[in-house]
Amino acid sequence: MKHEDQINQQTEEEVSNLDTESDDSVEFEAENSGFEPEVTAEEARIAELEKQLEESSQRLLRVQADYDNFRRRTREEQAASLKYKSMSLIEQLLPALDNFERALQFESDNEQTANLLSGMSMVYRQIQEACKNEGLEQIDTIGQTFDPNLHQAVMQVEDESFEKNTVVEELQKGYRLKDRVVRPAMVKVNA
Amino acid sequence: MKHEDQINQQTEEEVSNLDTESDDSVEFEAENSGFEPEVTAEEARIAELEKQLEESSQRLLRVQADYDNFRRRTREEQAASLKYKSMSLIEQLLPALDNFERALQFESDNEQTANLLSGMSMVYRQIQEACKNEGLEQIDTIGQTFDPNLHQAVMQVEDESFEKNTVVEELQKGYRLKDRVVRPAMVKVNA
Repeated sequence: MKHEDQINQQTEEEVSNLDTESDDSVEFEAENSGFEPEVTAEEARIAELEKQLEESSQRLLRVQADYDNFRRRTREEQAASLKYKSMSLIEQLLPALDNFERALQFESDNEQTANLLSGMSMVYRQIQEACKNEGLEQIDTIGQTFDPNLHQAVMQVEDESFEKNTVVEELQKGYRLKDRVVRPAMVKVNA
Repeated sequence: MKHEDQINQQTEEEVSNLDTESDDSVEFEAENSGFEPEVTAEEARIAELEKQLEESSQRLLRVQADYDNFRRRTREEQAASLKYKSMSLIEQLLPALDNFERALQFESDNEQTANLLSGMSMVYRQIQEACKNEGLEQIDTIGQTFDPNLHQAVMQVEDESFEKNTVVEELQKGYRLKDRVVRPAMVKVNA
């Protein structure tokens, strides 16, 4: 980075030198207007070289600017793709987690089923924990003000014991991966 | 890309022109050795400009080369990070999947447990399917030649009915995410 900044600075100095010099030559021509100016081979060569040098410097500035833009854009893209990298697997896991939760709501009528359910609850928590470590969060529902970005209203009720426009029941969990909604929660809203 | 290639080509032409010219000036000085060469202001200016132009061209080539390298490296890194993006979530899910499998090996002694197990088997397959879609594959074990990259030998047996150095039993599943081993399979090997 340091090295490139140096290059940049040098180039800018050269370009500003060039500007001054070409201004001079314009004045010179203006003073001699009306005459055919005598240009020696050396003067022609100097003019040619100054032109080439300016072109080369401009090209350098352009490439350097392209490079800087590309680097900035790349950094932004990499940060975003890192942040949401688990999105696609999580999206596919959610239907399995829904079914898992439904199965855990089994009411056991014997000890074996109760044991199995308790083992399965542990597995469910492990999976939830793994997803949480990747940034998955459940969307808050009951008691929250209805928010169309987070909640999908599939039913309406009229219930005096809740404020208006408030979520009164959660029908399916909603999830957010960091600040991005994976899917909204399905809810019942107080009209 | 096309535009940049053009720049590159132009620059190379300029640099090779410069090389020819600076060779000439070396010869000139050699012919005049022993004398103090008379250098006019114009000649000095030409020499100075030629030097600056060469430096500028070299700098342009260097920046362009850095840029090209950065672009290539970025492409490779992006491809790799996309390919293995689900690695960290999958690594965390595997212990849950191990426990899930153990729970599914419950021998049911009543209909309710059997129903619950059948529902849970479905959930397990859904999770496996989601992971498979991200590139997760189980490592082949029984009957395979022992491979220390894929298999971790935790037991040895001597069994005439198997070839030597062959996996005879799987103690824990191993997984590969595309071509990268997530964890080797724990196996019993025929000595």
